[in-house]
Amino acid sequence: MSEDLPWPLRFQDDTLELLDQTRLPAERRVLRLREPAQVAEAIRAMRVRGAPAIGLAAAYGVALAALRASERGEDPARAALDAAALLRATRPTAFNLVAALERMERHAAAGADAARLVREARALHEEDVTLSRRIIEHGQSLLALGGRYLTVCHTGPLATGGLGTALGVLLAAHARERVRCVWVLETRPRLQGSKLTALELARAGVPFTVVADGAAASLIARGLVDQAWVGADRVARNGDVVNKVGTYAVALACASHRVPLHAAFPWTTFDPGLPEGSACPIELRDPAEVLEVAGVRIGSPGDSAYNPAFDVTPARLVSAWITDRGAARSPADLEAQAG
Amino acid sequence: MSEDLPWPLRFQDDTLELLDQTRLPAERRVLRLREPAQVAEAIRAMRVRGAPAIGLAAAYGVALAALRASERGEDPARAALDAAALLRATRPTAFNLVAALERMERHAAAGADAARLVREARALHEEDVTLSRRIIEHGQSLLALGGRYLTVCHTGPLATGGLGTALGVLLAAHARERVRCVWVLETRPRLQGSKLTALELARAGVPFTVVADGAAASLIARGLVDQAWVGADRVARNGDVVNKVGTYAVALACASHRVPLHAAFPWTTFDPGLPEGSACPIELRDPAEVLEVAGVRIGSPGDSAYNPAFDVTPARLVSAWITDRGAARSPADLEAQAG
Repeated sequence: MSEDLPWPLRFQDDTLELLDQTRLPAERRVLRLREPAQVAEAIRAMRVRGAPAIGLAAAYGVALAALRASERGEDPARAALDAAALLRATRPTAFNLVAALERMERHAAAGADAARLVREARALHEEDVTLSRRIIEHGQSLLALGGRYLTVCHTGPLATGGLGTALGVLLAAHARERVRCVWVLETRPRLQGSKLTALELARAGVPFTVVADGAAASLIARGLVDQAWVGADRVARNGDVVNKVGTYAVALACASHRVPLHAAFPWTTFDPGLPEGSACPIELRDPAEVLEVAGVRIGSPGDSAYNPAFDVTPARLVSAWITDRGAARSPADLEAQAG
Repeated sequence: MSEDLPWPLRFQDDTLELLDQTRLPAERRVLRLREPAQVAEAIRAMRVRGAPAIGLAAAYGVALAALRASERGEDPARAALDAAALLRATRPTAFNLVAALERMERHAAAGADAARLVREARALHEEDVTLSRRIIEHGQSLLALGGRYLTVCHTGPLATGGLGTALGVLLAAHARERVRCVWVLETRPRLQGSKLTALELARAGVPFTVVADGAAASLIARGLVDQAWVGADRVARNGDVVNKVGTYAVALACASHRVPLHAAFPWTTFDPGLPEGSACPIELRDPAEVLEVAGVRIGSPGDSAYNPAFDVTPARLVSAWITDRGAARSPADLEAQAG
């Protein structure tokens, strides 16, 4: 990866270097993490975010546990399994986290040493770059010529090991001169849209405009959006898409005005054990994320807030599911890809 | 009005005392305005907001113009008409502003002196208290027993001359012990929900929970909302409701899950000259409201934003229109009330 492009994490000198995304766009601060507990904190605090990148950070966290245990003369496989349990508890919704940890656990349970676990995490990272590239390729055929796109939250390079999922599709489209504008939902409460998506679109020279989340439906109603592109944190067997809270409202507006909504995600986001979205655990985050903005309290002391991080978009509102395996046009297509 | 209750504005000693709502909830600062240009600034900057309160502020602004002109030995009626033109240009969407100014202009054009114009503005203010009381009465019959309500933006005492419109209905309902909880949409970009609605619900002892705007649809989908109650800034002849941006997305979610959406507003919000909502001028406000929160820049310098203050909810998504004239269950009912 070039130094010019932002990257969410990399593994060097037995250390996980992780860009602290909570400091963006103002500051580019790289954390050097050597302990799995530090990785768990970074995931929980959303210093690293985006379902694929969370999975990679967790995999490296398991490898770090094995490395440190080896240095202390302890059992690396045992330490790896303990770390996996710790990391699994950080965020309940993103399925890539579960998938990455299960893979690392299989190797640890088979007695892999630290070097082997580091290789496995690196392999996962390299595969993610490939998955991202394939998603982006499959996505190109669905784009509208000279399109005006709307996107939720952040799904670009900082969210994956590669160039992104939904935003990756739009960035690649722009390189082929097909993007007229991207409407960026600011995405309260953490504002990943105005902080991260805007940053990556600006770097790539893509015309974009930030809007409040509540404005999305009126843009769609007024014919200003050709397609919506979103990522996913977990996709159920029936095609329901669990994604950043606010996605469902966008999907309802898209369906009402016949605007396609495309969900782009690596196959590692697909959870064959989840029959439908309503069965997915939805992470509830700190109410302070709603009651404060940039550290400034908005309301009065003692106010209470409810802060679900994700919502469920039923499969019937999704026009296409774009994965590394292809573009599925129906839940049946998606199931066929599951093989 | 009691000093204990918040009030948006009052007229004393030939001066308009106006609570600067942009300072709430942290600070209770009352501005003493003596010139129409000061009133225009206060409306434009949303120091006073809520369609009914904007109309009252503008009416007093016209009266102030006449008073100041008289003091200078100038023609009060001429000054009043000039002030009305200035004030009309402050915010394009709220129809109460137009209605209040037209009424003041009629008197000015008939040669009313300053004292007469002050009396007219005071009369409008007293009438608004009555309108608000009637809306609240008509609204009670529509409530759900032990209800869980969702509301957008702010429509309480600070938004009107009386006890409010939609929020007034809920505050009165709580006095009769019928409110289990109110979900308050924070209402980006200006956050009137977390700043003002939360403040008024807390004062009244009503249980409430603030949520990000994007979370509304998932609350509705999960069966956590019995009814949505919203205000209006302008209502078209066909029943389309122009209200704070974000209302349309809530209405789509309500319709998808058979949750009633009620719009409460004084008859002065109804614009018989507007055939449908799509013909309503929608105010575009400063992009900085989206790109900054509490004075802190969120994204990067040079980012652009689009900031429509209102959206249009088609009449077919509205369950009832509650005005001082009654509760209309259909656009035909509403038209019949127009008489």
